[in-house]
Amino acid sequence: MEKINLKQKFSNLFEYWSPRVISEMNDYQIKIVKIKGDFIWHHHEKTDELFYVIEGRLCIHFSDSTVVLDKGDLFVVPKGVDHMPSAESECLVMLIEPKGTKNTGNRDSDLSSDNDIWI
Amino acid sequence: MEKINLKQKFSNLFEYWSPRVISEMNDYQIKIVKIKGDFIWHHHEKTDELFYVIEGRLCIHFSDSTVVLDKGDLFVVPKGVDHMPSAESECLVMLIEPKGTKNTGNRDSDLSSDNDIWI
Repeated sequence: MEKINLKQKFSNLFEYWSPRVISEMNDYQIKIVKIKGDFIWHHHEKTDELFYVIEGRLCIHFSDSTVVLDKGDLFVVPKGVDHMPSAESECLVMLIEPKGTKNTGNRDSDLSSDNDIWI
Repeated sequence: MEKINLKQKFSNLFEYWSPRVISEMNDYQIKIVKIKGDFIWHHHEKTDELFYVIEGRLCIHFSDSTVVLDKGDLFVVPKGVDHMPSAESECLVMLIEPKGTKNTGNRDSDLSSDNDIWI
């Protein structure tokens, strides 16, 4: 029963590509992530993944297209679809996905993050 | 695979207390709702409910407290908890909850809305 302000949460997050949990809804988690540069290509075998841009511009690359998301834009990447998030400048994103979802999906990488760290 | 801008979606929503679906993630729906005045007391027996304030101020009253949410604030009402959303002035809210969740929960009311209308 706690009110959460996203901007305040982001002010305590310094690492890029390190999702932090801010709340839960049933068996889903609401996360924030600060991004800059290119992530890695990956997909999530069992779940869709919701992106909502809080600040900045997020590009999500697909094998045959790219979506460009600005502040206030929302996008759901369907399960099983390869994608590569990217941002030229720092971008703040809210993610929603089932608890236990790994940020690099089907891939192991230096960018793989623990997936249940709260902020 | 469609990018969704929330402000653009809100520009086509004129009725208060009438949630409209803008996207889906697995078996959850992302909805927008425009609110003003008092809703009714209710709870959702089987699910938590996520509120994220896009514009304005939302009060969620509980039996023994009230949370006041401004733009950029997020709150998850736990399942089974009686609550009554309210806004003095027009307020724009994003809701996330399982598909099929009824806006008035355990209550039937003139404010009960069809729960699968897309915008």
